[in-house]
Amino acid sequence: MIQTSAQSLRHSNQRLLPPLGLGRWLIPCAGLLLASFATAGHATTPAQVLATSTATDWRTPAPDQTLLMELAGGRQVVIELATPFVPRHANRIATLARAHWYNGLAIVRVQDNYVTQWGDADGTQPLPNGITKLLAAEFSQPTLPAGVKFTELPDRDAYANHVGFAAGWPVAMENRNGPVWMAHCYGMVGAGRDAAADSGGAGELYAVIGHGPRHLDLNITLVGRVLLGMEHLAALPRGTETLGFYKTAAERTAILSARMLDELPLAQRPAVEVLRTDSAAYAAWLEARRNRKDDWYLHGAGHIDLCNALPPVRIR
Amino acid sequence: MIQTSAQSLRHSNQRLLPPLGLGRWLIPCAGLLLASFATAGHATTPAQVLATSTATDWRTPAPDQTLLMELAGGRQVVIELATPFVPRHANRIATLARAHWYNGLAIVRVQDNYVTQWGDADGTQPLPNGITKLLAAEFSQPTLPAGVKFTELPDRDAYANHVGFAAGWPVAMENRNGPVWMAHCYGMVGAGRDAAADSGGAGELYAVIGHGPRHLDLNITLVGRVLLGMEHLAALPRGTETLGFYKTAAERTAILSARMLDELPLAQRPAVEVLRTDSAAYAAWLEARRNRKDDWYLHGAGHIDLCNALPPVRIR
Repeated sequence: MIQTSAQSLRHSNQRLLPPLGLGRWLIPCAGLLLASFATAGHATTPAQVLATSTATDWRTPAPDQTLLMELAGGRQVVIELATPFVPRHANRIATLARAHWYNGLAIVRVQDNYVTQWGDADGTQPLPNGITKLLAAEFSQPTLPAGVKFTELPDRDAYANHVGFAAGWPVAMENRNGPVWMAHCYGMVGAGRDAAADSGGAGELYAVIGHGPRHLDLNITLVGRVLLGMEHLAALPRGTETLGFYKTAAERTAILSARMLDELPLAQRPAVEVLRTDSAAYAAWLEARRNRKDDWYLHGAGHIDLCNALPPVRIR
Repeated sequence: MIQTSAQSLRHSNQRLLPPLGLGRWLIPCAGLLLASFATAGHATTPAQVLATSTATDWRTPAPDQTLLMELAGGRQVVIELATPFVPRHANRIATLARAHWYNGLAIVRVQDNYVTQWGDADGTQPLPNGITKLLAAEFSQPTLPAGVKFTELPDRDAYANHVGFAAGWPVAMENRNGPVWMAHCYGMVGAGRDAAADSGGAGELYAVIGHGPRHLDLNITLVGRVLLGMEHLAALPRGTETLGFYKTAAERTAILSARMLDELPLAQRPAVEVLRTDSAAYAAWLEARRNRKDDWYLHGAGHIDLCNALPPVRIR
């Protein structure tokens, strides 16, 4: 039965599945970045929950708040901006992208178990007219944005009294009344800054490529999340200079272009969708993730931490 | 002042430092994998704590319990085995290594934000005489091994009531009397298994390359930790098949050899040291990590989670 399930899943060209015993030593599937569409039986595993979800459980990120970054070699990275939590930074990044300001810049730093960073490393590229280098920090918001539901996780968090998801974003609060801030989880994107709080300007961005460095929360402005192409940022060679900077320009990966999705013809926009964190499907998926009941699992943790619960992403 | 500090540190060939303002947008240093030796002032930052540590704060992993894996291209990976927690698996891996059993095998799977896996993917390589494929699981121990001090973290953990370090290993317990198990943190190494608990045999191993997948705890046997060369496992191209397996043999990275350190002449052994987690230096480092006071930091978290607190490693 286990063998049969595994084989039938294997033959259905699924990308991400729980391992159901493939006749060899294995470990199971990760936090599903791309959801599968397997036809499933009981909705008890995360993959099965997703397979039985409906179209309305998913949302399409707004094309005017989603960035498509093209790296050398045809590698595409799609980043959704967290506009409700960082309106100034989201606007700034969109403005820079529409001015083609990031085009021709490069990935300059990759530090293992920490971040991949890109942009104007030397701080010398002239900004578009009307844009100043510095931008006021958006480390937190006084309260949840109006109309946004907070889906609180039931488990403890090392860093905050309350954690969960709001409008799809991983957030933390000491007090339910706020302030609220986004959390540094794998795949989250932020805007580098210098020593002063208001010394960033979205001219350099970074993505988290290791265990969530939550000590950065409230210290630097997170701006969004990599929805697709995270592997293109995480699998890059680590830099050997201080802080993981590349030693030579030749080591850098060029950014061919960074455009907002609405700059592209419809047919060229990646058809990406994110599971709504205020949906019943997300609640069921979360519970299945908290208590894995795949055949392979022998012990359901009964818990989950924030950075292991980011909503699944799929290609429509 | 900040500029001066940063520049002087930059010129002293330090590998890992807090960023003190380099005149450009930056984000700070990660969980120090290699410790620096900067001459420091007040012992308030993690790097400064390490700089003022003494030789006795550090331990040298036992050469007969440490594996050196050499990958194609001269890339070296050093893995310490967690013998106190997994005596059977540590013994098995050492036996296989001494029989040169891993030599010529390959890295067969890299799944983003999850694991890199290597070994006998097809389960067809004959085992040395006297070795059977299966090995009883070592998911947990009934109590802490005799004589091992438990350095408990003061902060909450999503998955267990008590977490901390014992003999250098990240461990978790529901009850201080036990059982005790090791935690899936970035850089931890485990032994793949099939559906049954006792269906692994250390013929396939994996390293965690993403946010700690703690739901694997108590489901699979962790065997050790990558001390050096983690970047060689984490920066590999992700596999495009189900679960991140490589599609073709050509994508695999060959394991040229895997030997126990005591098989090597003294001069060829990497001079690696790990900060003792029962030392005062570790306690000070942990507290500094919990409350970052570098110039760059504006907000000390006042907390830390287990996987952000693994003891620093340095080259002597």
